[in-house]
Amino acid sequence: MPKTKKDNEQNSMASGQIDKGLQIKGRLWVECEGRTYLSWGRITLLERVDEHGSVSAAAKSMKMSFSHAWHLIENMNTLAPEPLVEKQAGGRQGGGTWLTAAGKQAVQDFWQLVAKFQNWIEHEHF
Amino acid sequence: MPKTKKDNEQNSMASGQIDKGLQIKGRLWVECEGRTYLSWGRITLLERVDEHGSVSAAAKSMKMSFSHAWHLIENMNTLAPEPLVEKQAGGRQGGGTWLTAAGKQAVQDFWQLVAKFQNWIEHEHF
Repeated sequence: MPKTKKDNEQNSMASGQIDKGLQIKGRLWVECEGRTYLSWGRITLLERVDEHGSVSAAAKSMKMSFSHAWHLIENMNTLAPEPLVEKQAGGRQGGGTWLTAAGKQAVQDFWQLVAKFQNWIEHEHF
Repeated sequence: MPKTKKDNEQNSMASGQIDKGLQIKGRLWVECEGRTYLSWGRITLLERVDEHGSVSAAAKSMKMSFSHAWHLIENMNTLAPEPLVEKQAGGRQGGGTWLTAAGKQAVQDFWQLVAKFQNWIEHEHF
């Protein structure tokens, strides 16, 4: 049974116009064997890690707890054919966290998928 | 900022296969001036009202509170060009609740939209 969601939980990734002042909205995500692998939130987290070089700063910028951010990253790393995020423990120079080439590719592929979705929703005859 | 959802909240309405054992999943809904108008849950509620002839029974069948079900129905009736659900107060014969022709059309249109989404997600080259 589908749960009824609150309006503000239904952030759309694509939208198009249908008649009578109505808009069609949609979300996409990618699963691996029934488990969420990539979604809008997860991809945004990867982008923020790439931007900040730190999971702590990335999580803070999304108002997400550090532990939840790490849980999501470890989950993506486990489901991916190769890790999307790598971390070096900090010494005196401080450690760091960065996206691997596979991580950058995943971000790029996801937004390409969203662009195709937006293109479909704009051009389909509803 | 998109919220990160739990896996079990991401009930998909359409799904397709992409490479490496990954599935693409998606949801669609219809908004009226930024407010949710029709969604999977709302349409299911309309179908249950049609089936049971009672909002109370329809809500119960979805494990939804009666007041929430009425709130959703009143909200859809307000946003629709004409009411989707009508109610007759109960006398000795009991009252009743039913879908109007517009309500039945909304259900049909929504599933047609979902079918187009499923068709796209199956045939698009990701």
